[in-house]
Amino acid sequence: MPDTKYLSRQSPYTYSYDNRTGWRRFRVLNPCRGMYHDVRRRLPYYWSDIRDALTYRTIASTIRIYFINILPAIAYTLDMYRRTGEFYGINEALFSSALAAMVFSVLGAQPLTIVGITGLISLFNYTIYDIVVIYEPSIYANFMCWTAIWAAIFHWIVAVCNLCDYMRYVTDFSSESFGAYVGIIYCIKGVEELVNEFTVYGPTAGFMSCMIAILYFFTVYGLELLGSSTICRPWFRGLLADYAYVVGTIFWVGFAHIPGNLKETGISFVPITRAFYPTQPRGWLIHFWELETKWIFAALPFGFLVMLLFYYDHVKCQQPWCSKQTIPLKETSRLPLGLLPLRLHHLHRRNHRHPNAERPRPTGTTPTHFSPTYTNPILNNLPTQAPVHTTSLTVTQTTLHIIPTSNPDDSGCTELRNPITTLTAVIEQRISHFLMGLAIIGTMTGPLLIVLHTMPAAVFAGVFLIVGWGSIESNGILQKIIFLLREDRFIPRNEELLRVPKRKIVFYVMCQVVGVAACVAISQTIAAIGFPILIIGLIPFRVWVMPRWFGAEELGVLDGLTADGEAVLCSLGGPPRFPGEERMVVEGERQKGGE
Amino acid sequence: MPDTKYLSRQSPYTYSYDNRTGWRRFRVLNPCRGMYHDVRRRLPYYWSDIRDALTYRTIASTIRIYFINILPAIAYTLDMYRRTGEFYGINEALFSSALAAMVFSVLGAQPLTIVGITGLISLFNYTIYDIVVIYEPSIYANFMCWTAIWAAIFHWIVAVCNLCDYMRYVTDFSSESFGAYVGIIYCIKGVEELVNEFTVYGPTAGFMSCMIAILYFFTVYGLELLGSSTICRPWFRGLLADYAYVVGTIFWVGFAHIPGNLKETGISFVPITRAFYPTQPRGWLIHFWELETKWIFAALPFGFLVMLLFYYDHVKCQQPWCSKQTIPLKETSRLPLGLLPLRLHHLHRRNHRHPNAERPRPTGTTPTHFSPTYTNPILNNLPTQAPVHTTSLTVTQTTLHIIPTSNPDDSGCTELRNPITTLTAVIEQRISHFLMGLAIIGTMTGPLLIVLHTMPAAVFAGVFLIVGWGSIESNGILQKIIFLLREDRFIPRNEELLRVPKRKIVFYVMCQVVGVAACVAISQTIAAIGFPILIIGLIPFRVWVMPRWFGAEELGVLDGLTADGEAVLCSLGGPPRFPGEERMVVEGERQKGGE
Repeated sequence: MPDTKYLSRQSPYTYSYDNRTGWRRFRVLNPCRGMYHDVRRRLPYYWSDIRDALTYRTIASTIRIYFINILPAIAYTLDMYRRTGEFYGINEALFSSALAAMVFSVLGAQPLTIVGITGLISLFNYTIYDIVVIYEPSIYANFMCWTAIWAAIFHWIVAVCNLCDYMRYVTDFSSESFGAYVGIIYCIKGVEELVNEFTVYGPTAGFMSCMIAILYFFTVYGLELLGSSTICRPWFRGLLADYAYVVGTIFWVGFAHIPGNLKETGISFVPITRAFYPTQPRGWLIHFWELETKWIFAALPFGFLVMLLFYYDHVKCQQPWCSKQTIPLKETSRLPLGLLPLRLHHLHRRNHRHPNAERPRPTGTTPTHFSPTYTNPILNNLPTQAPVHTTSLTVTQTTLHIIPTSNPDDSGCTELRNPITTLTAVIEQRISHFLMGLAIIGTMTGPLLIVLHTMPAAVFAGVFLIVGWGSIESNGILQKIIFLLREDRFIPRNEELLRVPKRKIVFYVMCQVVGVAACVAISQTIAAIGFPILIIGLIPFRVWVMPRWFGAEELGVLDGLTADGEAVLCSLGGPPRFPGEERMVVEGERQKGGE
Repeated sequence: MPDTKYLSRQSPYTYSYDNRTGWRRFRVLNPCRGMYHDVRRRLPYYWSDIRDALTYRTIASTIRIYFINILPAIAYTLDMYRRTGEFYGINEALFSSALAAMVFSVLGAQPLTIVGITGLISLFNYTIYDIVVIYEPSIYANFMCWTAIWAAIFHWIVAVCNLCDYMRYVTDFSSESFGAYVGIIYCIKGVEELVNEFTVYGPTAGFMSCMIAILYFFTVYGLELLGSSTICRPWFRGLLADYAYVVGTIFWVGFAHIPGNLKETGISFVPITRAFYPTQPRGWLIHFWELETKWIFAALPFGFLVMLLFYYDHVKCQQPWCSKQTIPLKETSRLPLGLLPLRLHHLHRRNHRHPNAERPRPTGTTPTHFSPTYTNPILNNLPTQAPVHTTSLTVTQTTLHIIPTSNPDDSGCTELRNPITTLTAVIEQRISHFLMGLAIIGTMTGPLLIVLHTMPAAVFAGVFLIVGWGSIESNGILQKIIFLLREDRFIPRNEELLRVPKRKIVFYVMCQVVGVAACVAISQTIAAIGFPILIIGLIPFRVWVMPRWFGAEELGVLDGLTADGEAVLCSLGGPPRFPGEERMVVEGERQKGGE
């Protein structure tokens, strides 16, 4: 249990409200206390965050994360470009991504987090556009600017008042639902991209795009599958896993340019404009002070919704680092930011546990940060890409695990030789994120924009599908459904879920599915911007309604804290208290102790 | 060892040359001896071959084999139709398949064999067409007729002179090469079908066809994968496995008819003509006596090549029933026939072992059979479909196999729960093949021809790809390549191949790959009809050349008799004698004894 040692050594910095009395007990009344502790925890490790980067993994990680960040970013930009009257284009997306990456990697308390453009940002931007054009299309830029300003203000309030601490109430119940929702949205976007080919470029382009997207999907999926098999040497499998997206993208982009039927079909390519200039003929600075007062306040609820989404999104980003996952690194970062015009890099308290590496690292905080007003899309944490960043920085070792069996099998073998993947270290540093930002700046130059222009939209549809499916495939909801479908006798007897009656599992999954379905449904309407309320609503639903239908023990098996590492909970001010479910937390801690 | 009992009980019928002296030692000088023994072995079981059919498996098998026979048959017919100046059409293919199925199932010594149209038949027919049109296009029908007559005559000679016995020298070396070759030809045909869509119906139809073919492939593959998993109940998995082709075909045919872009694209559908009439305006009877004498004799070498192909093809058909495979039924059938105009159902000696069923069955023979002269394509054994027929008639039971492990694994589990599939019986009967023939007759009627006409050629491209890939995926060559690629430490220690140096395995696989590549290459030229010589040439190559490069023990591991069941070898007149490799056969028998 490395935690105990860590906790005891770091005790001066421990952030808790347990022993406080009077008004000091209330988190809201202790402004900036959380951020202060985060900075104290993280600062001593700043130099090593740079020094540790001198390894091959940083290069591999930079390339991989560059592709996995920029491909969906461009994909979503294609979507936004069409649906916001061509307001947001590639240049905005690249500029925004690059700036966010560089600022975040230098000033962020947790450099492994990746910020960028996600499907939900796209959804927000075009839904607001749909609403604004009903009244006055010309104010869209200013209106978005004010939405971002309001969102920034709400973020400061959340951070200063330590409201981040309530993230500890988020359990797998809602974060699995959110993950499935995001995955489905990605897949829908992929299909929409293909439908667009049909409607704009005709059926030939449409069918060719479908073919490319499907084959791109299976190429990347197959390469990653090979990468996790026992084929060839470990270093070769590592290469496959690192460069599956690179190989798939380069191959299928080239494929679309083979002369003949393929080249002549005229599928759509990424639209580009003059390097370093905004897509529309205007300056980078938005004159946000020119907006009418009524519109400024109309933007307030939108800003609040953005804050709600980012608040929740950030929890989702913690998930892969939690102890129940396989990544040895444990960390959370409180709030993801990078806001349009008033770009607020509110990089707040993170904490961070590193049990398998040589030394445990405390957490840190950086102060809030302003950057000039320009017209980029809002950026937030990338819930599907951030785990990939961490994975790509993880040094794994596949070792042979021989399981002697008591009875020889049909072929007379008395042992099983299974590969066991051990995670030996995580190269935790700020450089890969920073280099990725530099690479994106490079992509903004003229020659590389032309390279971007060679990429067919169909490849991006494939990116949507593979990233979306990745989120669905590993989702707890799907895992539970597969468990329900499996024939009982082949399930290992120590499977936790066997302790819960099947009908209870079915009911639990049904609750999640209804939540996901509601979110997906609302996303297809103009009420789409309201979906963060639905997602956030799952948390009180879980805390107050679910215990009426499920026993505490059942919930302990079915659900779990999304942020359940002890160091994480410590930085959030101690474990949450669910009414009548003390057992769950205690049990969670006991299990971790046994690990 | 059920064999011993069987062999001793059946000893009066045992067919061997071991104890014979003088001229009687020579197989050629004992005309019809093999066929006589086959009839005597099989005849007593004729009634039970009908009676045993009263089970659900017969129905499932009939439906499955109907689809799996008729889909590639139509697919190859599309190919032949285009490449033989529209001489062979759907009506010819259906009529031929139906007649062959019904005659073969009633009179065949081994009713589980399935005859039909294969890619090699198609290759033969259009290569001969390519050659004939150089001289005199009008004689094609008569020429093919005489090719078939000569082939029939050669078949009789082979059967009467007991030359079938030499099939026992066929080893996995050549039959794996043949299997890989057939699989590759199937895949090439699938691609050609798609290319045809591009060239004839334009790029839109081409891309849509590609999309349908790819998705059809993954649908069927995925359903069959699910069928062999531990998802759901065993009966449901059985349904998935039985009806994967049916579900895939119906879905994707329907998909192609969805109004809108899909319906309007104008992809090609199966061309049909007037029910029960030949595709071209002529009678079913070919006036083969009207051919000039020089052409009659020109057809002789072609007939010989057909015989060579069928001789070899038949060995390939035995493969899945051999003891090293997982199917409990063991049988060989000597020669596959059903020859154009002079339809010769030379249904000769088979033998047959059935270790897991309640009683062992001897083999039987039916006499040769003539049917009237009509213009259908030649039919032969279906090397890829016949195993499916047997599989679909196999009653399997998935049982739980608990392997206690000595050390608990990470999750504290001390046992592994693996599914073990046991084959409890094979419903061996003549009815499913016969019913399939009836169903094909039904398909020839007007209304069902119109249903056929709704099927896009793209689905058939998908059929080619899935059937071809099935043959490649399970091929020993690919298995050896995967073995070579795997990381050593994860290979079970009792793996036979570990006893051979890796470079020897590489060399062995290279020999096979060169053979396959040569066959594939020749198939793309007008010399394609010569490929049976290449395939057959691998047998002497294996017997005389390979032992110079490989030790007897190495060959014993790398290679094996294709027909190695004791009952099979017994019906072929005893095990083969490889120069300097007595050990291999003896070892093979020892291993079987240990099973």
